[in-house]
Amino acid sequence: MAKVVLGLDFGTLSGRALVADTAGRELACAEMPYPHGVMDEVLPCGRRLPPDFALQHPGDYLLVLETIVKEAVQKSGVRKEDVIGIGLDFTSSTVLPVNREGIPLCLTPGFEEEPHAYVKLWKHHAAAPYAAKMERVAKERGENWLTRYGGKISSEWLFPKLFETLDLAPRVYQEMAHFMEAGDWLVYQLTGALSQNACMAGYKAFYDPDAGFPDRAYFAACDSRLENAVKEKLSSPVFTQGQRAGGLTREYAEKLGLMPGIAVAAANVDAHVCLPSVKITQPHQMLMIMGTSTCHLMLDSRDSAVPGICGSVREGILPGFYGLEAGQSCVGDLFHWFVNTCVPEGYTTEAKKQGLSIHEYLQTLSQDQSPGEHGLIALDWWNGNRSILVDPELTGLLIGQTLLTRPEDIYRALIEATAFGSLKIIENYRENGVRVDEVRLAGGIAEKSPFVVQLYADVLGLPLRLSGSAQGPALGSAMFAAVAAGEAAGGFQDIHQAAENMGSLKDEVVLPDPERHAVYQRMYALYEELHDHFGRQNDLMKRLRGIKAGK
Amino acid sequence: MAKVVLGLDFGTLSGRALVADTAGRELACAEMPYPHGVMDEVLPCGRRLPPDFALQHPGDYLLVLETIVKEAVQKSGVRKEDVIGIGLDFTSSTVLPVNREGIPLCLTPGFEEEPHAYVKLWKHHAAAPYAAKMERVAKERGENWLTRYGGKISSEWLFPKLFETLDLAPRVYQEMAHFMEAGDWLVYQLTGALSQNACMAGYKAFYDPDAGFPDRAYFAACDSRLENAVKEKLSSPVFTQGQRAGGLTREYAEKLGLMPGIAVAAANVDAHVCLPSVKITQPHQMLMIMGTSTCHLMLDSRDSAVPGICGSVREGILPGFYGLEAGQSCVGDLFHWFVNTCVPEGYTTEAKKQGLSIHEYLQTLSQDQSPGEHGLIALDWWNGNRSILVDPELTGLLIGQTLLTRPEDIYRALIEATAFGSLKIIENYRENGVRVDEVRLAGGIAEKSPFVVQLYADVLGLPLRLSGSAQGPALGSAMFAAVAAGEAAGGFQDIHQAAENMGSLKDEVVLPDPERHAVYQRMYALYEELHDHFGRQNDLMKRLRGIKAGK
Repeated sequence: MAKVVLGLDFGTLSGRALVADTAGRELACAEMPYPHGVMDEVLPCGRRLPPDFALQHPGDYLLVLETIVKEAVQKSGVRKEDVIGIGLDFTSSTVLPVNREGIPLCLTPGFEEEPHAYVKLWKHHAAAPYAAKMERVAKERGENWLTRYGGKISSEWLFPKLFETLDLAPRVYQEMAHFMEAGDWLVYQLTGALSQNACMAGYKAFYDPDAGFPDRAYFAACDSRLENAVKEKLSSPVFTQGQRAGGLTREYAEKLGLMPGIAVAAANVDAHVCLPSVKITQPHQMLMIMGTSTCHLMLDSRDSAVPGICGSVREGILPGFYGLEAGQSCVGDLFHWFVNTCVPEGYTTEAKKQGLSIHEYLQTLSQDQSPGEHGLIALDWWNGNRSILVDPELTGLLIGQTLLTRPEDIYRALIEATAFGSLKIIENYRENGVRVDEVRLAGGIAEKSPFVVQLYADVLGLPLRLSGSAQGPALGSAMFAAVAAGEAAGGFQDIHQAAENMGSLKDEVVLPDPERHAVYQRMYALYEELHDHFGRQNDLMKRLRGIKAGK
Repeated sequence: MAKVVLGLDFGTLSGRALVADTAGRELACAEMPYPHGVMDEVLPCGRRLPPDFALQHPGDYLLVLETIVKEAVQKSGVRKEDVIGIGLDFTSSTVLPVNREGIPLCLTPGFEEEPHAYVKLWKHHAAAPYAAKMERVAKERGENWLTRYGGKISSEWLFPKLFETLDLAPRVYQEMAHFMEAGDWLVYQLTGALSQNACMAGYKAFYDPDAGFPDRAYFAACDSRLENAVKEKLSSPVFTQGQRAGGLTREYAEKLGLMPGIAVAAANVDAHVCLPSVKITQPHQMLMIMGTSTCHLMLDSRDSAVPGICGSVREGILPGFYGLEAGQSCVGDLFHWFVNTCVPEGYTTEAKKQGLSIHEYLQTLSQDQSPGEHGLIALDWWNGNRSILVDPELTGLLIGQTLLTRPEDIYRALIEATAFGSLKIIENYRENGVRVDEVRLAGGIAEKSPFVVQLYADVLGLPLRLSGSAQGPALGSAMFAAVAAGEAAGGFQDIHQAAENMGSLKDEVVLPDPERHAVYQRMYALYEELHDHFGRQNDLMKRLRGIKAGK
């Protein structure tokens, strides 16, 4: 009988546990929201937070962990002896300071009211000035590693958040023994052993398997107090994906109702962990995870130094490969903005009458259009452009409106714009020598909208396949758990084997329509022209922002 | 006691009569819609019309004329002996073929089912191919007069409509004794004397007081059958504005309950007639009539050859001056498109709750914003660009959207875009040596929205004054009636005197706020950049239209 693994997926608002067997069967699931959710206005003690803060409570993770694991295992009906490993993924960079005993500082006396002692969620953007300074210094010093990140440092990453803490809450900085990714901290709780994982360290903290973290001189140039940050706060060993970070402690085995000593895999980033879940463990196939934003992930066997992607990280996704990450910063968010902001009463009324969501209704109205029929082109930069321009200051554009333009026309044009944005990313890979032969889709939009999927196939001109699981990250985590457990325990020798046995794709291959693709090629040429004009040649969007900011 | 004049304003859907005295007091009004309205799908006989047709029934004009004059005079309580003149304005070029007796062909036997025998309304666009041919020929031949019209010939003008009739209904062409502006035809009905007016002839039929109409060779080059069109179909004398076209016939005096022989003024175009109603009878002051579209009218003492305006016509508005016309092809139409197409249910519900129109509600929400606060810029080309690019193929553009952009932000940006479009027209005048010192506003939008008026003052950086009358065209027509009647009869010596005595402005002068104007100057620089890029340097909007048209 197939052995069983646990995959845990810690998202922005909740955690999910999946019990799966090594044949890829999903046996049971459980989910629980974090009681404190995202704290962006006030701490539990009542203290108000500055703008751009987004904190979480580490106690939530432990409570959710225990609850969902017990619930999922119980639902599945498996015997605890059959569970051979646990893997988990987490949003990133979601980081917290802990003391020498591994206790989050915010849970220790004297720090309950200190915002910087809490978990800084990935979308905590208050570290932006520190990111800007770190980027400037890296550029001035000509730091090689910066090119791996498209020449940009995001305020969402680990070091800007650490720098912010040092500068604004030096007592927290001094008191912390480690500044940890929440994913690594959870693994630490389960195993009692400190570690970091190569994915988070690689994508969010400039880590490279050979070179390690950036050197002291760089940090010293950012701020003399930061010189020894790596040695002092990030000293634990780094494990690659699928490595066993440790065995489950007796204490947690009891809490969770599992056997002590079973493998706990190194943590993963919630997006990157999905690649094997759609059976991608080799180059030339791209995974697009389409949700509020879209993440484009690929493997490459060499360092192709593709400009404009958000991360080209050796061993960042799978051992033995460069992991390439690109992204679009608003996709589902853009469609939601449109339906919330721009759709008239008559449409919402009619959608209700027909028992459709407003998205479904607008898709019904626009799905029979020929490409180009609405006469519109948009640039999908409502939330800036992540790839390939790496410029959060860019804004949206819609062109071609007439007095006959209808809401469904604009809706369709916005969907097309996001597809053009993905095509631009793919073309950029190709121009830099990275083949993209096939695209696999996961995420809420891909699951819910065959219309969007077909439109993407027509725009990209590539066959598309959809993830077979609605729990891509949790399934991926379960697969890494099976690798960490190893063949001897009933798991797998490596992630390729795990993907082969547990990965999941829908049977259908969505093929592009050649005629529609031909028209979309012409529209894409216009998109590219606007993209280059407003993204590279003309800084009008910046000047408009300047006026807005009163500069 | 002041004498009384009648001003009649024939619009697209209805006619209005105003009884005013020579002190400018508006004594009574009456209005009546045309029973047949605009016939754009079917003739009264049931015959279906081709696309782009927009016809009217000439019998409607006579019925409305009689009804509204009698009603208004009766309401006013004036004695018929005190009524010294009638003036009228009409949409233009709204044209009809009549026989030797002045009877519209469509009312004569054998022509009831012939679409080309009816009145072609100004917005009858089916003559577009003929306009294109006439424009091409005029360019090839280097016809000087074409520059007076910005180098373009509109399908809305007289000759393309005549050419269309010749080509598609040669029997109508052959049978007609005159091809008349409906305004001139009504004057003909009232006086029994054939005439044309310099305004319609000048703006819609290439007429110049010295050179007359274009010469035979030009028309022959367009089509050999058209060679003698002017001599054969447009032979009546041309009167300037304010001239007495004739005296009221005994027959019409009886029908209308007025004294026979009173002055009937030459007809006017409904927009151009407004200038004296806001006391403009000299250069350097602009009248903007803001409705579904905006019309910009000015006088100039010399021929400044300003490019990109729709008409620079000697004696076209007032004797002794060049009349300059420019325009924006969608203003109110754009705001209506927005509220009908892009405003969500929550807004319409809240507006109803507050007892506001959706326009008022959106203005309430956006009126306290600082210029530039919304971060948006639009090009107001939803219906092409009339001035100064003279390009109906251009389309809309909105730039600067983010996920925080709200409906009221876009609404305000669209209003600003129309103001920038007007500023572009004014700047274009200035660059070509025509001073614009002050702007006066008339039309529905100016009347209803103090918010829009203040915004325009802030954008234009000019003091604005508003028309004192809600009946600008009818009041203007009444003033020309008083001039046609002459001083001896109790009217006026010239239009300057009439404007002085009867013109009407609100007391308030709306001044620009210097700070807001300074920010708008910076935004206008961006508008200009987009204007020139998409209007002159880059034909992307055309290529997008090409894809839409399947070309």
